[in-house]
Amino acid sequence: MSPEPRAAFDDPELVERFADLVVGFGANLQPGQVMAIGSEIGKEDVTRALARSAYRHGARYVDVSYFDLHIKRARIEYAAEDTLDFVPPWLGERIVELGNMHAARIGLTGPAHPGLLAGLDPNRVGRDQLPAVRETGPVVNARTTNWTAVPCPTRPWAALVHPDVDPQEAWVTLCEQIVHVCRLDTDDPIAAWRERADTLVSAAARVTDRRFDALRFVGPGTDLTVGLLPTSKFLAARFETVDGIQHLPNLPSEEIFTAPDPARADGVVRATKPLVLGGSIIRGLEVEFREGRAVRIDAEEGAEVLRSYAARDETADRLGEAALVDGDGRIGALDTVFFDTLLDENAASHIALGHAYAMCVEDPADEARINQSSIHVDFMIGSPEVRVLGVGTDGAETPVLTDGAWQV
Amino acid sequence: MSPEPRAAFDDPELVERFADLVVGFGANLQPGQVMAIGSEIGKEDVTRALARSAYRHGARYVDVSYFDLHIKRARIEYAAEDTLDFVPPWLGERIVELGNMHAARIGLTGPAHPGLLAGLDPNRVGRDQLPAVRETGPVVNARTTNWTAVPCPTRPWAALVHPDVDPQEAWVTLCEQIVHVCRLDTDDPIAAWRERADTLVSAAARVTDRRFDALRFVGPGTDLTVGLLPTSKFLAARFETVDGIQHLPNLPSEEIFTAPDPARADGVVRATKPLVLGGSIIRGLEVEFREGRAVRIDAEEGAEVLRSYAARDETADRLGEAALVDGDGRIGALDTVFFDTLLDENAASHIALGHAYAMCVEDPADEARINQSSIHVDFMIGSPEVRVLGVGTDGAETPVLTDGAWQV
Repeated sequence: MSPEPRAAFDDPELVERFADLVVGFGANLQPGQVMAIGSEIGKEDVTRALARSAYRHGARYVDVSYFDLHIKRARIEYAAEDTLDFVPPWLGERIVELGNMHAARIGLTGPAHPGLLAGLDPNRVGRDQLPAVRETGPVVNARTTNWTAVPCPTRPWAALVHPDVDPQEAWVTLCEQIVHVCRLDTDDPIAAWRERADTLVSAAARVTDRRFDALRFVGPGTDLTVGLLPTSKFLAARFETVDGIQHLPNLPSEEIFTAPDPARADGVVRATKPLVLGGSIIRGLEVEFREGRAVRIDAEEGAEVLRSYAARDETADRLGEAALVDGDGRIGALDTVFFDTLLDENAASHIALGHAYAMCVEDPADEARINQSSIHVDFMIGSPEVRVLGVGTDGAETPVLTDGAWQV
Repeated sequence: MSPEPRAAFDDPELVERFADLVVGFGANLQPGQVMAIGSEIGKEDVTRALARSAYRHGARYVDVSYFDLHIKRARIEYAAEDTLDFVPPWLGERIVELGNMHAARIGLTGPAHPGLLAGLDPNRVGRDQLPAVRETGPVVNARTTNWTAVPCPTRPWAALVHPDVDPQEAWVTLCEQIVHVCRLDTDDPIAAWRERADTLVSAAARVTDRRFDALRFVGPGTDLTVGLLPTSKFLAARFETVDGIQHLPNLPSEEIFTAPDPARADGVVRATKPLVLGGSIIRGLEVEFREGRAVRIDAEEGAEVLRSYAARDETADRLGEAALVDGDGRIGALDTVFFDTLLDENAASHIALGHAYAMCVEDPADEARINQSSIHVDFMIGSPEVRVLGVGTDGAETPVLTDGAWQV
């Protein structure tokens, strides 16, 4: 008998290196800062390693918020209909105060309880959007916090991603993949990330400089034109706070993204990957846009959940993000559906319904035009088969991304 | 082979009955109320059952706060000395807002990670008092929230309480004991609690009516006189909010208690049970009082932790509570040290350093005199061998509690 293979995240030394990368480079915690960690039940080991690393890096205080999806399930199952969108004020005040004190923030992604909300009324599921709170968007836009979102592997997630192998093998494989996409298997992960971020920042600058009037996505089941604003700017990988602290909002990050014109999106788009939303899984998604609005949301499974999100407020059915992902990233190459937006969106070009990031436009007039909403839902529309074209104000089309390679 | 005995709290039906008793009777949640649950990692099953029960009882929202003692350990181990008493504002604002919205509250007691803070610098341990926040005292005094504190059994706690048997037997035994002391093994637990509460409320009224000037505790190693205020009132078991909602602040509850005169406590007292404080265990505690102040705190083990608490603020070394427990309760009869204040204090008469409850005095002048502090630490000083005497203003002594039986 050969010994059971050991998963990377069962090794405390690896978890500590991961935590140090996330705290010291991704969030780039500065001595004296408060550090908030958005975690959930099932992610205790990584959360504790992050807290230890944060305190070793000089955190003034580490505020951990453990979300429990079982409690959310109880609410959706039993609570009165008219209470489902109640959010206690202290949840939003916490994020506002984190902004005011210029804190560091870490969010752990990856479903820890996949399928737990299955079978519930999707309209009710869509009305409770916790742990997300609407105060987060403005705090992100104000660039007061240095933050990062990173994947946290769990065994239930591994079984979801790799259902055809035994649970231990699935766990070993998912851990390996996360180590790989986080570039923890390089000699110097921080240097590797600096280099990749440089590449993405440069591509973003080149696409921005073309000042396209729109992007057009063309592929199987997809022909969608997304209008851009006069000063729509593509950003990538590395952000800087108002205090000059550089951080990686997503780790891993392989995308360049901008804020589109919320009044101009026309055509049909077919999602190229499943979307995990509020604990539900939406498969075979197809969305039709007219004059900026998502006028039809269909899916093989789970369409109602996204419809409910898109009806959340008046502008929840308009676009807040358009993002392009090249073929050089480490995620797309794995050809794995992770059922996690952070990883999946960095495998493929995508768009998002809802809130836009103000730093993606340069002009105050455009800033007033970008979409404001209480939701932000990314869904993946890119693949090697989906060409991305830049459309000039004269209607001329220029290839931007073909077969996953930059054309500009 | 006989089948492994099954622990009561491994039975979902029992956990649901426990949750319904706690939510529907202990906290007495009213439809439309927000319900806050103070839980910790390791207590997920009971927490989720409480949330389900709360939503079934009509809760508007259930706000669960999972504390993680491992994060606290990381802080005490690594954080800079001058940051250890920092408390982020949102933790206090949450409890203030729970008060303002007249919410229901449940706290789960019982150590889930006993010994986890062992070996750390006790002065540093004493400076971080989370998850306790100072805003809780005033909210309790304002009687705006209907709340209850209840024990939540965990396997590590069971092993601590019953170290001489195997872990499964320890777990089965602790669960049985908690079922017993919560009177869940009676035909009608609510009726049983109504009857016991009636008995305690009546004893409290009789002792109050004697208007003693002081209580004197006399037993092995103990001769302590605790002054009372002119309108010190003994309370018991059942509280009522400003809205007229009756609740059991402690479930189980076997005590009658009052707010003493913080300026008058003299003598020496020996704790009759170990005290678990901030994750540390204090054994063989002996405290000497002079003119209301704890002037000497000694112990066989862990004295520094209590010394650090008592130095927390100017009045943390004065008494905020004196409580009497008769021999008819179910806890004392088990002759078990639970290492949990809620259970242990209800097994024996006790006193507390720190904050006093304003509802324990009738006169505004006395309310201005009771102790105000950021701490409230109960420690057990009663046993069948400790007599309790009431001292009149003329110095005459009247037996109050002898061999655990009421004498008034």
